[in-house]
Amino acid sequence: MSKDRATISPDDRGFYFADGVYEVIKYYKGKPFCFAGHINRLRNSLAGVRIHYSRVDEMPEICMALIEANQLKDKYAAVYIQITRGVAPRIHRFPGDDIKPTVYIRAFEMPSFLDEMQRGIRVITREDIRWLRCNIKSIALLPNTLLFEEAAGQGAEECFLVRNGFYTEATHSNIVALRKGVLYTHPDSNNILPGITKAVVINICKNLGIAVKEEPIRASETKKFEEWFITGTGSEIIPVVQIDEMIVGNGKPGPVTRMLQKEFFRMTYWELANEEIVTGDW
Amino acid sequence: MSKDRATISPDDRGFYFADGVYEVIKYYKGKPFCFAGHINRLRNSLAGVRIHYSRVDEMPEICMALIEANQLKDKYAAVYIQITRGVAPRIHRFPGDDIKPTVYIRAFEMPSFLDEMQRGIRVITREDIRWLRCNIKSIALLPNTLLFEEAAGQGAEECFLVRNGFYTEATHSNIVALRKGVLYTHPDSNNILPGITKAVVINICKNLGIAVKEEPIRASETKKFEEWFITGTGSEIIPVVQIDEMIVGNGKPGPVTRMLQKEFFRMTYWELANEEIVTGDW
Repeated sequence: MSKDRATISPDDRGFYFADGVYEVIKYYKGKPFCFAGHINRLRNSLAGVRIHYSRVDEMPEICMALIEANQLKDKYAAVYIQITRGVAPRIHRFPGDDIKPTVYIRAFEMPSFLDEMQRGIRVITREDIRWLRCNIKSIALLPNTLLFEEAAGQGAEECFLVRNGFYTEATHSNIVALRKGVLYTHPDSNNILPGITKAVVINICKNLGIAVKEEPIRASETKKFEEWFITGTGSEIIPVVQIDEMIVGNGKPGPVTRMLQKEFFRMTYWELANEEIVTGDW
Repeated sequence: MSKDRATISPDDRGFYFADGVYEVIKYYKGKPFCFAGHINRLRNSLAGVRIHYSRVDEMPEICMALIEANQLKDKYAAVYIQITRGVAPRIHRFPGDDIKPTVYIRAFEMPSFLDEMQRGIRVITREDIRWLRCNIKSIALLPNTLLFEEAAGQGAEECFLVRNGFYTEATHSNIVALRKGVLYTHPDSNNILPGITKAVVINICKNLGIAVKEEPIRASETKKFEEWFITGTGSEIIPVVQIDEMIVGNGKPGPVTRMLQKEFFRMTYWELANEEIVTGDW
């Protein structure tokens, strides 16, 4: 269906209550990246909010059909999947089991943020005001948008969130840092989304012999880390070169971050394996 | 417009991000209750999420027109107002200032919960997993619905939320308790919605000479309070006669709660001032 023709009922629980979950899957020239991981997380999110949707198994075909119908097979693109509990009169209690979830899926072009990946970004830090089930990829994203907008208003490109003195994650990416050759990132918990690109990076580290410690980073120890970056389906691996007023290292993406980017590109931009995006000194 | 014909764009930020706020105003036989208070809170919510909507001043006429168009002037009814940031391509950053908020307002019959008000309800207690700006009446209500559903699944009728050992509020009402003739309720803060019915109750207390302490109640001290009730636009004043396994008092609504209900009815069901709902021993 053409996007212009798609409509949602005002009685949709997604509109009344943010009662839904979502996923974004990147397609590199028609090849989905970590599809199984995204679908697995979608299942976990649905279970976390107790939405019963029986057709998750059909997602590979549905998503690929949308990539094709939108002429995105030769492009860097993404599929967005949103599933809400469905349409029902507005009361807090869940509707009966005969409720039919609302499923909204669309495909669109999504190039990599090559500029940000090369120069690195500046971030601000703020209190993590989100709910305590951030492991569920829910559409209740108001705090994320408010905090991201605050960063953007200050000319920054992400907002690192701090809860009880520790970095949790950013508004739509995970936080990773390096200290004396060891990679640190928050362990999966109720306070962060289990990042799929983060897991890919951890795996790359294991293959490269880089030690990984999945433990929370104390915000007060920010200066002790030599490199910082964010990971995400859209962000991929974006270096962070300034945190609030603090310049990270020499203000340029660090060597380990570069190496990890390069390895990530080998996995995703395979057709460009010999081209500058992967081999170049950037 | 007929409700069946109303549609929302899937690009509405209310649907993608829960990027919106709402209010519910009760109309007692055509007379709005605490209209100014609701509109003031709506303004605060809009400011809290930085949605610029210039037509809040027109709400009295719009709402009354909907009450009339729905033949609700002689009934106990409510108007639901939801304002989202508007329709824009899905990125976290706010759209430009030319964005037009989506405004969805509807009127419907809403009788009082007379049965619950007379017998009292049972509630369960759960960790308050919501975000840290609960003073904003946002549509990011997923945690509220999940927690309310958990209560309903156990045959309870509300869920008391506990943060750091203190009761904050319930999933869609404020919590009030009485101890040795003094009324206790959580002070307005980022952790609770500034309840309008709660404020009315506090005012009634002042008129009746009942002392009020706006301070958080420690969950571990639940047994020390003789009466409990919830307040809300829909709930009005509903006694709580059981909290988890603990029976409150003799399991029946307490005398101060009854007195406050009666005073509340005098203010709202004025046409029934001499009838049983107000005068009766219930």
